[in-house]
Amino acid sequence: MNKDKLKIIGLNGSLRKKSYNGAALRFAQKNMPDNSELEILDLSKLPFFNEDVEAEGIPSVVSEFIDKLLQADGFLISTPEYNYSIPPVLKNAIDWASRDERMPFKDKWVALMSASMGGLGGARAQYHLRQVGIYPEMRFLNKPEVFIGSAHTKFDDAGNLVDEFTQKSIIKLISTLIDNINK
Amino acid sequence: MNKDKLKIIGLNGSLRKKSYNGAALRFAQKNMPDNSELEILDLSKLPFFNEDVEAEGIPSVVSEFIDKLLQADGFLISTPEYNYSIPPVLKNAIDWASRDERMPFKDKWVALMSASMGGLGGARAQYHLRQVGIYPEMRFLNKPEVFIGSAHTKFDDAGNLVDEFTQKSIIKLISTLIDNINK
Amino acid sequence: MNKDKLKIIGLNGSLRKKSYNGAALRFAQKNMPDNSELEILDLSKLPFFNEDVEAEGIPSVVSEFIDKLLQADGFLISTPEYNYSIPPVLKNAIDWASRDERMPFKDKWVALMSASMGGLGGARAQYHLRQVGIYPEMRFLNKPEVFIGSAHTKFDDAGNLVDEFTQKSIIKLISTLIDNINK
Amino acid sequence: MNKDKLKIIGLNGSLRKKSYNGAALRFAQKNMPDNSELEILDLSKLPFFNEDVEAEGIPSVVSEFIDKLLQADGFLISTPEYNYSIPPVLKNAIDWASRDERMPFKDKWVALMSASMGGLGGARAQYHLRQVGIYPEMRFLNKPEVFIGSAHTKFDDAGNLVDEFTQKSIIKLISTLIDNINK
Repeated sequence: MNKDKLKIIGLNGSLRKKSYNGAALRFAQKNMPDNSELEILDLSKLPFFNEDVEAEGIPSVVSEFIDKLLQADGFLISTPEYNYSIPPVLKNAIDWASRDERMPFKDKWVALMSASMGGLGGARAQYHLRQVGIYPEMRFLNKPEVFIGSAHTKFDDAGNLVDEFTQKSIIKLISTLIDNINK
Repeated sequence: MNKDKLKIIGLNGSLRKKSYNGAALRFAQKNMPDNSELEILDLSKLPFFNEDVEAEGIPSVVSEFIDKLLQADGFLISTPEYNYSIPPVLKNAIDWASRDERMPFKDKWVALMSASMGGLGGARAQYHLRQVGIYPEMRFLNKPEVFIGSAHTKFDDAGNLVDEFTQKSIIKLISTLIDNINK
Repeated sequence: MNKDKLKIIGLNGSLRKKSYNGAALRFAQKNMPDNSELEILDLSKLPFFNEDVEAEGIPSVVSEFIDKLLQADGFLISTPEYNYSIPPVLKNAIDWASRDERMPFKDKWVALMSASMGGLGGARAQYHLRQVGIYPEMRFLNKPEVFIGSAHTKFDDAGNLVDEFTQKSIIKLISTLIDNINK
Repeated sequence: MNKDKLKIIGLNGSLRKKSYNGAALRFAQKNMPDNSELEILDLSKLPFFNEDVEAEGIPSVVSEFIDKLLQADGFLISTPEYNYSIPPVLKNAIDWASRDERMPFKDKWVALMSASMGGLGGARAQYHLRQVGIYPEMRFLNKPEVFIGSAHTKFDDAGNLVDEFTQKSIIKLISTLIDNINK
């Protein structure tokens, strides 16, 4: 990453290759405000959190992940909802990265969006995430809240975001994120 | 399992070998009401849910897990809370087991307990679980609510539950579960 | 009320005269399954809950309200969401009616619906309500979940529900409620 | 209030005269950091929110309340939990004070504490409050979280806070609040 730019880390709650949330993050990546950049991390390699494993020594894939987070100036999380809550792959990444000695989210701004096939657009995952962020001391933007419902109608087959309202919402979200970091 | 007995499946949100929740489940197992038995499943082998993997064919470890759940008459979940919510290993197991074609929890009674080091005893994980159970159509007992706070003071080093109040709470919980199933 | 019919009590979270939730309850009232009837109670006269007032003697308007609830076979709650949660007028009614000595909701089925101008259709109020119902031991239907979003487009000026999908959803909700009571 | 001091507004979720939360707020009032002061408002006079009433003109008791909030530099909320959620008297005050044209909480820091007889110390009310604060754009402190469980053991008969751990917790809470406002 460029040292002169604000570094935002993007986290995706879905492992699916054609994930709508992945597509939303790539849209954000192409439209980041000047002097900022978004790096989207791969969460698929992190093992399930297990205190026994942690006690033996944090796996390198985990500590490299946390190192990346520590360098971030802010975060953009995009996630589907699974059973009205957070996908385990995303929750697990947060759990590894919120142990007392290493708190990479502490007092940093976090912007949330969610895409799902249903009408609520992943809202329920976002509200659970806001509770999850208390202990790691995430600082969530209150607004705008970006819920991408009926996601299959908002992206084309190649994974491009084609819905104009959603495009504007995401651009507003990332500009608010950067503004808050700069204040 | 014995065909004549009510079959309860136990799920543990922690992978730790000396897990307090595992110890609480083993206490329940030894104290099940007459004509019922508790089988505690291992959740550690289930991969992270991924729709791409599901589309290629559900892994056998997953479908064997769901088969077990389908045979159950009820459920006993014991879990720590991670970051004020559900451990991914438990949430992931539920996510695999709540796809429209196979709904093993549907209309079955579920009893909850939680053990954690902190004072709230895992309560926050339980309230998120209750929201997670709506789509899979779990039927949660409202009471008793069993929160095992300061868990390190309630179990001995060998993992035996030694706190009398907690013992009685768990016995009340499993007897209420069985009563509700029998109604 | 007719003694031979199942008695359902309807509660509305809004005090507004042209309340969409009131209109939804009136639609339900006209379409109740055979051998059931819906009575919609007025919550506007209940004072704010105050333990000092309770200690001096429960106001008659409150005890008459609780008497009505005690006679009910089930409940249908329809509510807007205020600030992503439950309107105080509804929460207050539930709080008065869930004191240990008088538990009118205990083990009775409760069906939920919500109407709001926003896109989420009051969903956030419903999920908070489900947590509120644990102590009073409400037994919520898991499905169907009825969220009436963009409510101003679903009712005509006279307060008639004109959206066919919503009509069917409410009819499904009340038939499921009655079926569960009859089981 | 003194113009040179930071003005914190205190809100109490209980109307009870001997309210533990009121006593906790009075303890905070006496121990505010230098150059800050706490004014505790009376919420008992606010009528239930009703859009019809609002349309006819906001009652003066409400607009005077909102005026007070507009002048505040920050907030300290102390509340019991009723049915695992927010007391209506407090939620109602927030609902009146979060209409688009007048947003007195917007981007201001809010510190939370809760006292209750039960073991969880009002935690469930706090987590619902955090969701309620999103639309009004409250900025909650993540830590410290102050849960005053078994409240009847922490205060003497005259309403003085006598538990040293709780005293220190509240002092830490208000000093963190003032520090955040000053940053």
